[in-house]
Amino acid sequence: MSTQQFKQAPHKLLVIPGPIEVTDEVLFANAHPSVSHMAPEFASVFGEALRMTRDVVFSKTGQPFLISGSGTLGWDQVSANLVEAGDDVLVLNTGYFGDSFADCLQTYGAKVDQIRADFGTTASLVELEKALQSKKYKLVTVTHVDTSTAVLSDPKAVAAVVKKVSPDTLVILDAVCAVASEEIRMEDWGIDVVMSASQKGLGAPPGLSVIIASQQAMKVFETRSTPVASFYASWKRWLPIMKAYEGGGAAYFATPPVNLIFAFHQSLTQLLKSSPTLEERFARHKEVSQRVKTAAAELGLKSVPVNAAEAANGMTAVYTPPGVKSSEMIPLFLKKGVVVAGGLGAQKDAYFRIGHMGTTVVNSERGDIDKIVSVMKEVVEEVTSKKA
Amino acid sequence: MSTQQFKQAPHKLLVIPGPIEVTDEVLFANAHPSVSHMAPEFASVFGEALRMTRDVVFSKTGQPFLISGSGTLGWDQVSANLVEAGDDVLVLNTGYFGDSFADCLQTYGAKVDQIRADFGTTASLVELEKALQSKKYKLVTVTHVDTSTAVLSDPKAVAAVVKKVSPDTLVILDAVCAVASEEIRMEDWGIDVVMSASQKGLGAPPGLSVIIASQQAMKVFETRSTPVASFYASWKRWLPIMKAYEGGGAAYFATPPVNLIFAFHQSLTQLLKSSPTLEERFARHKEVSQRVKTAAAELGLKSVPVNAAEAANGMTAVYTPPGVKSSEMIPLFLKKGVVVAGGLGAQKDAYFRIGHMGTTVVNSERGDIDKIVSVMKEVVEEVTSKKA
Repeated sequence: MSTQQFKQAPHKLLVIPGPIEVTDEVLFANAHPSVSHMAPEFASVFGEALRMTRDVVFSKTGQPFLISGSGTLGWDQVSANLVEAGDDVLVLNTGYFGDSFADCLQTYGAKVDQIRADFGTTASLVELEKALQSKKYKLVTVTHVDTSTAVLSDPKAVAAVVKKVSPDTLVILDAVCAVASEEIRMEDWGIDVVMSASQKGLGAPPGLSVIIASQQAMKVFETRSTPVASFYASWKRWLPIMKAYEGGGAAYFATPPVNLIFAFHQSLTQLLKSSPTLEERFARHKEVSQRVKTAAAELGLKSVPVNAAEAANGMTAVYTPPGVKSSEMIPLFLKKGVVVAGGLGAQKDAYFRIGHMGTTVVNSERGDIDKIVSVMKEVVEEVTSKKA
Repeated sequence: MSTQQFKQAPHKLLVIPGPIEVTDEVLFANAHPSVSHMAPEFASVFGEALRMTRDVVFSKTGQPFLISGSGTLGWDQVSANLVEAGDDVLVLNTGYFGDSFADCLQTYGAKVDQIRADFGTTASLVELEKALQSKKYKLVTVTHVDTSTAVLSDPKAVAAVVKKVSPDTLVILDAVCAVASEEIRMEDWGIDVVMSASQKGLGAPPGLSVIIASQQAMKVFETRSTPVASFYASWKRWLPIMKAYEGGGAAYFATPPVNLIFAFHQSLTQLLKSSPTLEERFARHKEVSQRVKTAAAELGLKSVPVNAAEAANGMTAVYTPPGVKSSEMIPLFLKKGVVVAGGLGAQKDAYFRIGHMGTTVVNSERGDIDKIVSVMKEVVEEVTSKKA
């Protein structure tokens, strides 16, 4: 069977903010016959995947880690490798994912301060600057796109403040819901860690924790004075493995998710080496996002992100019509073959979320965006006419 | 496209001790269109996979955990959830994987004693009894099949000694290379944790850490006095998730590896609900193992396991002919389309390993075992005639 012959089965359109729709080619790669994790043919694919991972965030010198696990494992990697017990860290908290990153950092002994943004907004850069002046932080974390709210932070501006006030402080970007749907220029902007996962903008099935760490971050890791407080998440264990595979060889610490690496490699190849280019993809995500947001606004739906400039391009979060719960709307979307997500956290019934990333955005011949817009209109009309 | 239409591409026969050959149906499930991790259709598949995981080890009351990660993550789960800093633990060390489990336990603050078996043998039960009498151990670990040597321990006998001398001590079975190729009767034998991974006897691609914990183990977890020392590996985070999915609902801590859960579910279905039965599968593994081991012996190859009764049924490890390195033999196997593994650890060039698990064993129409046996004969004749 060849790639050309494989067509995924008809199914409901999955437009939650990850996992996302993936291409037939990516699924076919995920169904690759079993291959040894030590085989040269796999080592070369893994090596290329590592190099392409760096390319997606425009990094020349970053150290990529591709490890079997959910995106959440990235928090453990940051916390266990870059933090030592008692270190002060600062979390710019824009919602659910900031809370959880803070929890994870505390688990590994960090003393966590937080700048909490109001729901639907980003953390204040003025407060960030003040905090950095008041205390020496080992690292600052920022969620690029908070999947819970679609709020878009400005990592370039955050990094600029950090590098101005406290150049040794590492800037950690939780970009799980941002890589490949939002522009990230890791080195130009001074980001020390980009953490992500395979199943959002990166366009592969879930199951791969994706990290790129700057040389400054690796130096902080290498000069730590206490042992790494995790076994599975330890870069001490994984660094030689990633270097071996990138060098074309194979090395063993734990069995990599071979099929998923094939799938991820396929997706990266489509992202980086085919039309549209990565830059064009970012532009398409902006256009499509604008289209979905405008359509929602025309239906009277209010955006969860308070400021239009702080709204993600890879997803949209909008409040439901007055008196309607998102849990009432989601089944109506489903009936029309479209899978969207409710809210997350305390206000979960008050809003719903639509993901528009990857093939759904760039392959307009699929008609996914047309479908999202028309079904959203039908559902809103249905629920509002019932209430009327 | 339907399951019947999907045929994996022709490829070299993968008979290392994991990952193993998997069926077309399993690969097709791994290429399932994207589905929400919160969708009812996925929740029901995840729930069934959890129940079937329990069935594979004949457990009625064990708590299964299916978490995105390599088998190695199972060590972190045991160490972070069941051990508190300063606890005494005992590792029955039969090779490479015992060393690593000990490393992991130490990372989480355990005081580790080890009973080291000579290369190719199992740890002494007499020494185990003495050790248990001398000190109160929180847990004892035993590697069911040490993938590095093919040595088969007797978990039933180990558990019997532990339960006799120190009934509160938990028995942890590292069964990564044993579940579904060796019989494990978790509750009858008194095993507290069975840890495994998806890519060996369980017959799916790699990327899933598989654990079943006894109610006694869960009680030790629930009554610990210090916080769990990991975020990603914390059962505190995962237990409500596993319970939700088993109950037919969905809950979120980290995105599960949706496609791999479909694949794992498919493989468990083949293991448990089709012919041959699980018991017949164990018998087949024994027969096939005997056939491969006899063929090796007839070629003059000496077994790495010193005692025939302590040799795994899912893999074979044999020394190379005199003066021949395994690194010379492996390329000759490869040329004939068969992928076997060299040794692991200090003696890695002195022996090689063949995996015979899953579809390779039970679906004799594939002819995998015939091929292994005939190619092994050709390769041995080739290397010995060169030396002659």
